[in-house]
Amino acid sequence: MAQYKAPLRDMQFVMHEMLDVEKHYQSIPAFAETNRELVDSVLDATAQFAENELSPINQSGDEEGCTWNDGVVTTPKGFKEAYAKFVELGFGALAAPVAYGGQGLPPSLGIAVSEMTGTANWSWGMYPGLSHGAINTLEAHGTEEQKQVYLTKLIEGTWTGTMCLTESHAGSDLGTIRTKAEPQADGSYKVSGTKIFISAGEHDMAENIVHIVLARLPDAPKGTKGISLFIVPKFLPDGTRNGVVCGSIEHKMGIKASATCVMNFDGATGFLIGPPNKGLNCMFTFMNTARVGTALQGVCAAEGSFQGALTYARERLAMRSLSGPKNPEKEADPIIVHPAVRNMLLTQKAFAEGGRALVFWLSTFTDIVHGAESEEARKTADDLMSFLTPIAKAFLTEAGYEAANHGVQVYGGHGFIREWGMEQIVRDTRIACLYEGTTEIQSLDLLGRKVLQTQGAMLRNFTKLVHKFCQANEGNAAMAEFTGPLTALNKEWGDLTMRIGMKAMQNPDEAGAAAVDYMYFSGYVTLGYLWAWMAKVAQDKIAAGTTEEAFYKAKIQTAQFYFKKILPRTRSHVEVIDSGLETLMAVDAEHFAF
Amino acid sequence: MAQYKAPLRDMQFVMHEMLDVEKHYQSIPAFAETNRELVDSVLDATAQFAENELSPINQSGDEEGCTWNDGVVTTPKGFKEAYAKFVELGFGALAAPVAYGGQGLPPSLGIAVSEMTGTANWSWGMYPGLSHGAINTLEAHGTEEQKQVYLTKLIEGTWTGTMCLTESHAGSDLGTIRTKAEPQADGSYKVSGTKIFISAGEHDMAENIVHIVLARLPDAPKGTKGISLFIVPKFLPDGTRNGVVCGSIEHKMGIKASATCVMNFDGATGFLIGPPNKGLNCMFTFMNTARVGTALQGVCAAEGSFQGALTYARERLAMRSLSGPKNPEKEADPIIVHPAVRNMLLTQKAFAEGGRALVFWLSTFTDIVHGAESEEARKTADDLMSFLTPIAKAFLTEAGYEAANHGVQVYGGHGFIREWGMEQIVRDTRIACLYEGTTEIQSLDLLGRKVLQTQGAMLRNFTKLVHKFCQANEGNAAMAEFTGPLTALNKEWGDLTMRIGMKAMQNPDEAGAAAVDYMYFSGYVTLGYLWAWMAKVAQDKIAAGTTEEAFYKAKIQTAQFYFKKILPRTRSHVEVIDSGLETLMAVDAEHFAF
Repeated sequence: MAQYKAPLRDMQFVMHEMLDVEKHYQSIPAFAETNRELVDSVLDATAQFAENELSPINQSGDEEGCTWNDGVVTTPKGFKEAYAKFVELGFGALAAPVAYGGQGLPPSLGIAVSEMTGTANWSWGMYPGLSHGAINTLEAHGTEEQKQVYLTKLIEGTWTGTMCLTESHAGSDLGTIRTKAEPQADGSYKVSGTKIFISAGEHDMAENIVHIVLARLPDAPKGTKGISLFIVPKFLPDGTRNGVVCGSIEHKMGIKASATCVMNFDGATGFLIGPPNKGLNCMFTFMNTARVGTALQGVCAAEGSFQGALTYARERLAMRSLSGPKNPEKEADPIIVHPAVRNMLLTQKAFAEGGRALVFWLSTFTDIVHGAESEEARKTADDLMSFLTPIAKAFLTEAGYEAANHGVQVYGGHGFIREWGMEQIVRDTRIACLYEGTTEIQSLDLLGRKVLQTQGAMLRNFTKLVHKFCQANEGNAAMAEFTGPLTALNKEWGDLTMRIGMKAMQNPDEAGAAAVDYMYFSGYVTLGYLWAWMAKVAQDKIAAGTTEEAFYKAKIQTAQFYFKKILPRTRSHVEVIDSGLETLMAVDAEHFAF
Repeated sequence: MAQYKAPLRDMQFVMHEMLDVEKHYQSIPAFAETNRELVDSVLDATAQFAENELSPINQSGDEEGCTWNDGVVTTPKGFKEAYAKFVELGFGALAAPVAYGGQGLPPSLGIAVSEMTGTANWSWGMYPGLSHGAINTLEAHGTEEQKQVYLTKLIEGTWTGTMCLTESHAGSDLGTIRTKAEPQADGSYKVSGTKIFISAGEHDMAENIVHIVLARLPDAPKGTKGISLFIVPKFLPDGTRNGVVCGSIEHKMGIKASATCVMNFDGATGFLIGPPNKGLNCMFTFMNTARVGTALQGVCAAEGSFQGALTYARERLAMRSLSGPKNPEKEADPIIVHPAVRNMLLTQKAFAEGGRALVFWLSTFTDIVHGAESEEARKTADDLMSFLTPIAKAFLTEAGYEAANHGVQVYGGHGFIREWGMEQIVRDTRIACLYEGTTEIQSLDLLGRKVLQTQGAMLRNFTKLVHKFCQANEGNAAMAEFTGPLTALNKEWGDLTMRIGMKAMQNPDEAGAAAVDYMYFSGYVTLGYLWAWMAKVAQDKIAAGTTEEAFYKAKIQTAQFYFKKILPRTRSHVEVIDSGLETLMAVDAEHFAF
């Protein structure tokens, strides 16, 4: 299996040359000390850890999987040791608040770290990843005492966290959860119920596990307005074992080294976080972060499968180029000479690098929301983040899945064989389109909540940026091949939204019919904007004179590929959207099959 | 996991109402006795076998997989027994020649049988499926003695067959194979070399295994013109063990119950079939059949995942319909109320039923090629089959993979869990886009060999049929929604081909750049023709009066869905094709990554 190599040059291009993060960090007092040197040293250290510690146990982790024995979960060989090293090196504490032992670095730098650990070994990365959810929730809504007890340990990494939301009958529809919390005389609660799909719910890496649990108080209103949030630790602060046990682990398509647990709460002692019945509101912060984190899984899948496929396409000899032998001294040409193979590689590359740009850019808004002093700056960033998050989550996970499948395809029959590692990426990343809200749920969130419910205001926030970019490059002949199509698509986006909005006023199901194609349209245009932006940066570098001309040229050529070969996909989505709801609803539910 | 239910009503619709197979069989002397009653009794018997014997061991077969121990391969529990029953019931001999113990039924009926066994348990179906390849090759090219010795046993089913083509360095590029065959004094050959990816290469179901092996004679010309075909049985006719051993089995993404073997030939005794150095020509018959058989895997994946997803979408309660509660007495609506879920189900249904129509129709040409008396009829059928086979193979396997992924998606997070069976279909069917020639190779075969090399003649054979159909329905108002778009696409197909042809004359790589999108365009239009045809049949049935109006209405509604929601995908493919080769070739091979 291909060894992971951190794409440091590409990451630096995005962080320093495109986003100028040093300047961005300096504009936020909390992050003002994060200079370029610090960023690069974190990237280098993470690259080494990901390449040397995580990548080598990725395939063995998949083969071995987790095992469950009477409530005890054992992670695959090497996972515990890698986690101990991660804690020792202080990686978990990077973007955590200084007051509780963290290093206070910007969230966007944390995303860069997660990309590398995630590409090297997504399953492993889920254990510290889930702690982030618990850390964010406790930081935002915990009492000072709760922070002292739990947050410090979670940031230290000696304890890990989980988010216990889903029940077997309730996934996206959290309003119907049944887990109960009964108040006790001492102010604590007895939590009872069964949660499923709990990542890192039980394992052998940490001394304690802090579950953040959604449950209902006895007098809670029905639906989403009657859900409260509780801390339920595996071991209580006094060291006694709490009444929460892992009943079993799931057997899954992929991410087999990540324990997905059924958690049984049997009168477990819990502590309320945040106000009663406001649990779902408290979760929103965490959910946005988790969605951006899942969007990243798409980038990781694209990057990992691209690296594997590129290596193979350069080495594998088969057939001759249609335009004549390119490797006449050997019995066949390397398969990278074939346009169809290049199309797959360039699609992977365009999704990996474009997706990275989107997620990193998006995470600079998280920096602002977390740290900016101006209320207005925080509001602007939060609005853009709200709009872009469902696009990033749905579009990049689907793009990552497509890229992973190209990875298999480039290998031909060998792609289906486990030892090459390409099919593992497909299996591991299939979950990204499902968890943290499926592609369909994200699409409804985008079109319904973010676009139509704001009368298009959130969309206009973004299209204005695109418009501004195109205007700024007016008259720049070298940019016309990008700004031309982008201007047209940007306008079409508004028109399309208007047409859907009109139909949805007659029948809300019209929005449901349009949502997924609308998300794809939005995703392709958004990535088009980022590719145009990257092309501009590369053009400027070449114009200014550089020793890295080949690097910058490849960026421009990939942008050109994206505009010619990927953006035309918008044509079909527009036509499908305009064809409306009718044919989707015509067949009676009982007449789908006979 | 969902129990398979054979879609008999849909199969009958295609065979009797759409294709009128009874009349078709009567027109071919060899199959004249195959009447409707016989067809239905074969379908019923197969349905029972598939539902009761194969479906129950599909999931356990995946879990258990095959095991290898010192050259001995053991298939999962129940596989051997099911195979014994299959042989006992005479299923393997259905479409085999009467002269060697077969029942002489038409190949197209064999396809219907394969659909049911394949959807119920694709891995299992590969064991008898590989025998078909050996049977067809021996029937076409074997000597009378070879037929008496091997063909009778293969048809009886007590022996099974394999096709040994691939070597580790040579998959699609068979011209570079290295396995050698040295002539012996007694007229036999000593075959030496290593073959990989040999399905059913070793197992515990049959008394003997007959390998059909591609190898080179000592004086053979280089490349594809120096390949000969050999029979190498595991046990020689005199009962001695031959020098062919299974060195290991592959660990794969899916079809885990199908043994994929490395076969080591170490001076194994072999017997030449067909003329020396003409092995690849002899293989062509087999290859077409194998490709149609693989196209069927796409249909099976679509049908199986559709059945699973439909059951779940009707039962799973989550969220409310955007247009108001549809199930007010329960706490949520079944998810089939949501347009996005219906879109996935209808896509699966359109691919399953449309794909079945394509494969069954295609297999009626196989009947004609095998059995028609008129040379001209055979030639016409063979030409249409040559044109449609790469479309069916590439397009239907990709469509089946998409459908299988929709199956996972409809289940949400549960789709990722093995017990529901949806992810197994994704894993099992991923190979269909790779083996028997990848999607990319099929696309080149279609555009290069079949279309451009015949100056469009093979394409015109088909577009003429479509044109005739549209003309015949001119003035039929109820058909206009189908014939209108179909007429336009049919014309566009020719124009598009012309544009590609012009570019390819300047640079053959332009054909390589266009091929995959061209295949998709061709596939969507071809399936559009079949859906229009099915809509016409259904309209006629309703007009004539029927007690099954709901069944026929659903056919028309699915055709309408296909035309409104699937056919627009052609828009993007046309635009991508017209954007040409340039951006694919711009990046230097060494500058894809830094």
